[in-house]
Amino acid sequence: MPTTAHMTAAVHAYVEAFERGDPEAAVALFAADATVEDPVGTPPKVGTEAIREFYTYSMGTGAKLHLEGPIRTGYDFAAFAFQVRLKMGDADATVDVIDVFRFDDAGKVRSMQAFFGPGNFTGM
Amino acid sequence: MPTTAHMTAAVHAYVEAFERGDPEAAVALFAADATVEDPVGTPPKVGTEAIREFYTYSMGTGAKLHLEGPIRTGYDFAAFAFQVRLKMGDADATVDVIDVFRFDDAGKVRSMQAFFGPGNFTGM
Repeated sequence: MPTTAHMTAAVHAYVEAFERGDPEAAVALFAADATVEDPVGTPPKVGTEAIREFYTYSMGTGAKLHLEGPIRTGYDFAAFAFQVRLKMGDADATVDVIDVFRFDDAGKVRSMQAFFGPGNFTGM
Repeated sequence: MPTTAHMTAAVHAYVEAFERGDPEAAVALFAADATVEDPVGTPPKVGTEAIREFYTYSMGTGAKLHLEGPIRTGYDFAAFAFQVRLKMGDADATVDVIDVFRFDDAGKVRSMQAFFGPGNFTGM
């Protein structure tokens, strides 16, 4: 099982990947056959190519992630609350999200779920 | 699918059940065959009797839940960050947790997962 330090570092690397607009840094955190369900209730993106396409698009919006409160880690998971901030034209928009990463034994993210819905948006 | 208003109300009812020390008010939120995995990585409590026993014990510690940030709701879920606060003898103790509720079509919680680990405790 991956360590708490490893899973915590992966979350920070994910946030920093958005900060730099570096999709490959996000893709590198995931297993080759990982699933990304973002938001939960939509069809998962499966595998490296689909995940690369997703993060290339997501980071292309200029979205930045701001962690809120401590990262919850244990067993094979990291769960974390954050606010997405981006520009819609000249206006500021935000989305409040909770992500859950589950890790495989190699320390890669095997599944990611993003929990948010229509009521979690402002400015859109 | 349950509404955002319904799922949000269920989370507030859950927090209030702890505030009042009323396990039955928590049990009433769950489907008869619901699962409670608290923390994630431990064997789930399954069904009304096991869930009643769990919340009777949990609330018996005097634990209170303090929501942090907005409840994330969409599809069939509510996800929320909070801090558990309780007394250990004369000392204050806290646990930072993220819970995910998934609801059935009747609006009952069919699964609950609590994400926290050893690094999320203080004062214990």
